[in-house]
Amino acid sequence: MELTFLGTGSAYPSPTRGASCISLKHEDWVWLFDCGEGSQIQIMRSSVKPGKISKIFISHLHGDHVFGLPGLLCTISQSNQRSEPVEVYGPEGIRKYLRVNLELSRSELGFKYVVHELQVLQCQFHADWDKWPVDHNCDSALHPNELQGKCIQPEENSVWSLFEDNKMIVKAVWLKHRVPSFGFCIEEKPLPGKLDLEKCLTAGVKPGPLLGKLKMGESVTTQDGIMVHAKDVVGAPRPGRKILILGDSCDSSETLKVGRQADLLIHEATLENDKKDMALEKGHSTPGMTFSNALCLQRSYFAF
Amino acid sequence: MELTFLGTGSAYPSPTRGASCISLKHEDWVWLFDCGEGSQIQIMRSSVKPGKISKIFISHLHGDHVFGLPGLLCTISQSNQRSEPVEVYGPEGIRKYLRVNLELSRSELGFKYVVHELQVLQCQFHADWDKWPVDHNCDSALHPNELQGKCIQPEENSVWSLFEDNKMIVKAVWLKHRVPSFGFCIEEKPLPGKLDLEKCLTAGVKPGPLLGKLKMGESVTTQDGIMVHAKDVVGAPRPGRKILILGDSCDSSETLKVGRQADLLIHEATLENDKKDMALEKGHSTPGMTFSNALCLQRSYFAF
Repeated sequence: MELTFLGTGSAYPSPTRGASCISLKHEDWVWLFDCGEGSQIQIMRSSVKPGKISKIFISHLHGDHVFGLPGLLCTISQSNQRSEPVEVYGPEGIRKYLRVNLELSRSELGFKYVVHELQVLQCQFHADWDKWPVDHNCDSALHPNELQGKCIQPEENSVWSLFEDNKMIVKAVWLKHRVPSFGFCIEEKPLPGKLDLEKCLTAGVKPGPLLGKLKMGESVTTQDGIMVHAKDVVGAPRPGRKILILGDSCDSSETLKVGRQADLLIHEATLENDKKDMALEKGHSTPGMTFSNALCLQRSYFAF
Repeated sequence: MELTFLGTGSAYPSPTRGASCISLKHEDWVWLFDCGEGSQIQIMRSSVKPGKISKIFISHLHGDHVFGLPGLLCTISQSNQRSEPVEVYGPEGIRKYLRVNLELSRSELGFKYVVHELQVLQCQFHADWDKWPVDHNCDSALHPNELQGKCIQPEENSVWSLFEDNKMIVKAVWLKHRVPSFGFCIEEKPLPGKLDLEKCLTAGVKPGPLLGKLKMGESVTTQDGIMVHAKDVVGAPRPGRKILILGDSCDSSETLKVGRQADLLIHEATLENDKKDMALEKGHSTPGMTFSNALCLQRSYFAF
């Protein structure tokens, strides 16, 4: 897996620092986490291939985390005819955000997209939420390239299960911020054990397709008629890696539900330690606050 | 007046070329024409002061002309407490575009903004317009920082009068494109004649405040009691300058109604001359098409 920090600035993009956007590359696909304005330009500067982006996770709807999303989809569409839909995950409102932007700009994409909304809990709304009513629902017809997405409810332990296939599991937890914000836990399933090439050769398996079958856990028969079992030449399954990527937060303690012993914790730290009061007021963290969280999680590596 | 080409790329921004955005600086204010994604980063790279931006004219709602607008307003708000509202002019739908973006991102600005919509004529709708219904109306409550804008109807000659003060007049005409698109004619009113310093000194007016009064058209009395009239020491009023800034178009002949003998015509040219058929299909111009228009307008300078 390869992570690229495409933007780490807060509030707005600048010539020297992009707005929030992180890419995660894993064999055939790329996932994005947040997509602030100008993320597509940062992607062009990086080794990330836009056409490989298959999922985009939006932590919260503040502009510096989402204003680059409509333009990114339009640009992917200019150069790429995807066969699989691009899947977008984010808080309630993200579907309306994308649909209205793509409709008013009359953007037709060369691929399908689908938006899965994370249902927001009452405890995620800041005290001033109701002073300014905003309609987050999207009851208009689907955009021509849009497939109907899911509404993802939290499970009983307030963990949102977003995605699972034979290699990866993605979950979300809520983070305390001025608007509903989510942190994402990306976990690899156990990886197959490593093939012991020396043992294979000793057993009479010559380099070629048989090695691939052994690696996949099958038994094979050599040219000399000897049966070789995978369990004898393949090591024990290796634990998958776990990464936490957190949106803006002044309290990320909910990550303890999913993120213990993560291999990597990526945590914002917007204000300095001596501005902790302001950080709490604005819904952000200081480096000190992020360290406390990191220690609780017993993480291996830590970036903020 | 000073023009800065902040972005001239079509379709999308890139590390080497911004999406559509032009600034016009005139003494105390800056006006923007279009605001594609990343325009705010281009502004930071330029000598344009974001806090001076008082009017933003949007030619049409394609993303490469408008996706940078919500972020730009948010960033201006970070650093600037304007006393006057920022005024946005654009086709029907621009009000909903801005309101939904600022509401869903829960962006509160440190200043007021107002959106004036140009009513679109039936002839501006492309043949495929109705195949995909989009609601351009904005009937929700005003955003907390929004003032109610105008709906600007075209006059009988299909010219939209957008703005006039004691120095400037701005008008719009429609351009043929795949979505409703407008071109803008910015005209300076006649400038005061130049003060003839030599004549002033000969008449006994010493350098100081009296020169300013003469320049403003007043009569003054020198220390020696001689009355000096402005008409005797100030030259004839000079004609103001006229600039045409056109959005995407495959037929800009409507500009003849407002733009004859413009000092400067800025015209897109997206495709090469040998791709004229494709240009017409996509609603764009080739350099050859823009030259034809420029010749009709008898313009002085020409940029595409």
